Amino acid sequence: MSLDVAAIRADFPILSRQVNGRPLVYLDNGASAQKPRQVIEAVTRAYEAEYANVHRGLHFLSNLATDNYEKVRAIIARFLNAPREDEVIFTSGSTEAINLVSYGWAAPRLVAGDEIVLSVLEHHANIVPWHFLRERQGVVLKWVEPEPDGSLPPEKVLAAVGPRTRLIAITHMSNVTGTVVDVGAIARGTQVPVLVDGSQAAVHMPVDLAALGCDFYCITGHKLYGPSGSGAIWIRQDRQAEMRPFMGGGDMIRTVTRDAIDYADPPLRFEAGTPGIVNQIGLGAALEYLMAIGMENIAAHERLLRDHARDRLRALNWLQVQGDAPDKGAIFSLTMQGAHAHDISTILDKRGVAVRAGSHCAMPLMEFYGITASARASFGMYNTTDEVDALVEGLSFCRELFA
Amino acid sequence: MSLDVAAIRADFPILSRQVNGRPLVYLDNGASAQKPRQVIEAVTRAYEAEYANVHRGLHFLSNLATDNYEKVRAIIARFLNAPREDEVIFTSGSTEAINLVSYGWAAPRLVAGDEIVLSVLEHHANIVPWHFLRERQGVVLKWVEPEPDGSLPPEKVLAAVGPRTRLIAITHMSNVTGTVVDVGAIARGTQVPVLVDGSQAAVHMPVDLAALGCDFYCITGHKLYGPSGSGAIWIRQDRQAEMRPFMGGGDMIRTVTRDAIDYADPPLRFEAGTPGIVNQIGLGAALEYLMAIGMENIAAHERLLRDHARDRLRALNWLQVQGDAPDKGAIFSLTMQGAHAHDISTILDKRGVAVRAGSHCAMPLMEFYGITASARASFGMYNTTDEVDALVEGLSFCRELFA
Repeated sequence: MSLDVAAIRADFPILSRQVNGRPLVYLDNGASAQKPRQVIEAVTRAYEAEYANVHRGLHFLSNLATDNYEKVRAIIARFLNAPREDEVIFTSGSTEAINLVSYGWAAPRLVAGDEIVLSVLEHHANIVPWHFLRERQGVVLKWVEPEPDGSLPPEKVLAAVGPRTRLIAITHMSNVTGTVVDVGAIARGTQVPVLVDGSQAAVHMPVDLAALGCDFYCITGHKLYGPSGSGAIWIRQDRQAEMRPFMGGGDMIRTVTRDAIDYADPPLRFEAGTPGIVNQIGLGAALEYLMAIGMENIAAHERLLRDHARDRLRALNWLQVQGDAPDKGAIFSLTMQGAHAHDISTILDKRGVAVRAGSHCAMPLMEFYGITASARASFGMYNTTDEVDALVEGLSFCRELFA
Repeated sequence: MSLDVAAIRADFPILSRQVNGRPLVYLDNGASAQKPRQVIEAVTRAYEAEYANVHRGLHFLSNLATDNYEKVRAIIARFLNAPREDEVIFTSGSTEAINLVSYGWAAPRLVAGDEIVLSVLEHHANIVPWHFLRERQGVVLKWVEPEPDGSLPPEKVLAAVGPRTRLIAITHMSNVTGTVVDVGAIARGTQVPVLVDGSQAAVHMPVDLAALGCDFYCITGHKLYGPSGSGAIWIRQDRQAEMRPFMGGGDMIRTVTRDAIDYADPPLRFEAGTPGIVNQIGLGAALEYLMAIGMENIAAHERLLRDHARDRLRALNWLQVQGDAPDKGAIFSLTMQGAHAHDISTILDKRGVAVRAGSHCAMPLMEFYGITASARASFGMYNTTDEVDALVEGLSFCRELFA
C-alpha cells in the first residue's frame, strides 16, 4: 500500500507554514520530528480536561490520568511487539534510558578490565554513558568500525567480543549514514547482553522485539512524532532483576523509613518521581497514529524517498555522501569541497529547506570519515520526492555560490 | 492587592468541568497543579508553528525553538531572583534535580561516615537519593524531627550539624503539613552546603535566592502550573564547578573521541540529550503568568484560604490535623477516627472534591505522627473560600457516614 502523503501532511500543522518566504521543507527529522494534530490534541485534552497527578490519587481526575498514562505502556509494548507490558519502562527519552542501564545495570556489575563493545556509528547518547564507566571504574571500550560504505556486518561486532565483554551497545540505525544494523544477528550470535539504541530505527521501520532477542531496547518520543520528554526503554525481565534503582524519589519505593528502603517492583522501581504524564500520553497518540498508517507502509514510502535522493545525490559529482549501505534509511550526510556544512545549512534555510549541520552527536563517526561536520538531510514519513528535488536544487545553488 | 480569583479561574479550562455531576473542587495541588490556557497555548504554539530540536540547528525553526527554550532560563532566574542565569540547570523536575546533586556532587565526594542532615518533613524525592549514598557508600543520614506542630526551628537543624556533616538537605515547605522552613537562617548559620527542595514553596511564596544563601534550590514545573516534565535546579557556580556530570549524551560534551571526552561548560554539562524543549517553554509561560499576578499577591490570597480552612477545620473536634505551624502554607493533612484516608478521599470525590489520600511520599513524617496515611487538601491560587466550605461539608458528610 502506498502512503497518502498529502493526507498525512495535512495532519501536521507546521508543514503548511513558510520559512523565509518559502514553503517549509523539513529535512531535520533525525534531530526531531514534527507532531501531528492528533498528538497536539491529545496533549491539549489532557491538560484541559483530564489532568491530575497519577497513581495513588483515588479521585476521579487522578484515576483518569492514571488510566490514560498507564495505557501508553501497552501501546509501546504493541508498537515494539514486546513480550510483556511490564518490561516497558517510561523515560524522558533515549539519553535517560541508556543512562538508566549504565547506572542501574552496568556500573554495579562491571569492574576494571571488563569490556563494552560498541560501534563507531553510535550517537553520543550511546557513547558517553559508557565513557563514564571507563573514566570512573576502568571499563574498556572496544570500538568496531563500519565498512567504508557505513555498513556494519554483525560478524564484525561479534568478532570483537572476548571473554571480558560484558555488554554490546549498538545502534539499530545510524543517525548520520542511515545504516541499518542487523542487531538480531548480533543478539543471536552471543550470550553477551545487547543494548540496542532504537532512537532512529523505531521511527522508520517495524521493530519486533520478540524476534530481535536483545536485552535492552530504547526509543525516544520526540523523534517518533511525539512530545518533548517522552520515551521508553524495554528491558527484559531477567535484566531488570539484575538492576539496582537509578533515580530515587517517590513512586519507586514500597516503604521508606529513616533507616531503610524497600523498593517497588519493576517497572515502577525505575520510574522515580512524578513522570512525564502528558508527554507519555502524547507519545501514545503518536504511536497509535504510526500504527494506523502501518510501519511497513512508512518504511516502503521512505525507501522510495531514499532511492530518489540517492539517485539524484549520486549525480552530483561535487558532493560527498558519507556512507551508502545497501538497505540504509533515508538519512544523508553531505559534504562539499570548499563549503562548510554550516554554510550549506544556512543557504538551504534561506530557501526554506531545513537540514542540520554539525557533528550530529557522532564525533567518532565524523573522525572515521575524516570530517568535522556535515550537512544532514533526514527524511520522515511526511516528506515527498518533490522535497528531495528542492534539496538537490538548493545544494546546486550552494555549489554555484562556492564553486 | 487582592487577587481576582474569578479571572484566574477563567484561565484554567479544567476548573469549569464537572466531576461526578458536581463542579470540580480541585484540592490536590500539592501533587500537581492545573494549567492555565496561557501555558496550554504556549505548548500548542510551540508544536504547531515553532518546533525543531534546539542548539546547533542553524535553520530557522531550530534557531526559533532555541531562542524560545533558552529564554526560559532567564525567566526562571528572574522568578527565583537567582544571581546568574547560567546557574539555572533545566531538569525534568525535582526528582531529577536532587538525583543530579546526589550523583554529580555528593557521590564522588562523600565517604563512609560522612553525614547528611535532613528533616523528617522531607518528601521521598529528598530522601531516597541520600539513602542510596547510605546503602552504597556508608553515608550516615542524620534526621531532625519537627516540633509536634510541624514547625522546624532552624537552630534544631543547625544543632544536628557536626564535623562530619557534608550536606544539609531540607525542604522549604512541607508537602504534608505546609510547614515553611526558614532555610535562609539555616544557610546563614553554617558553612555546610545546603540543598533546598523548593518544590512546594516556590508555588506559594516569593523565593529570593540572592537573599537565601543556599547552594542548591530546585523547582518542579508541574506543580508550578506548568507542563509535565519541566523544572530546574539552581546551583551556585562554585558548587557546579565541584560536580561531575550526571547523565551522559549529546549536548553536554565539547568533544568525544574513542578514548576521551571533553565536557561542555555548565549549565550544558548537566543537561544531556535532547531536553524537554516544549515542556520548558510551557514552564516559562507558567512563570510569566505567576509573575504577572505577583507571588506576594498569591501568597496573601493563600493566607486567607489557610486561615479560613484552619478556623473551620479546628471547629471539627472529630478531625485530626497533622501539623499547625504558625506561618504554614495552605496544605492540610487530615485524619478521622474510624475512617480510612482512602475512604475520605473517595467520598469527597463523589461530591466533586479532589483530595489525595496516602502517605504523600513522606513516610518518615507519617511515622512521626503515628499514622500510615492521611487525606490531604492542598490549595492553589485559584481556590476559593467557598471551596474550603465544600471541603468542610464533605468531611462532615464523611463523619456522618462513619460515626
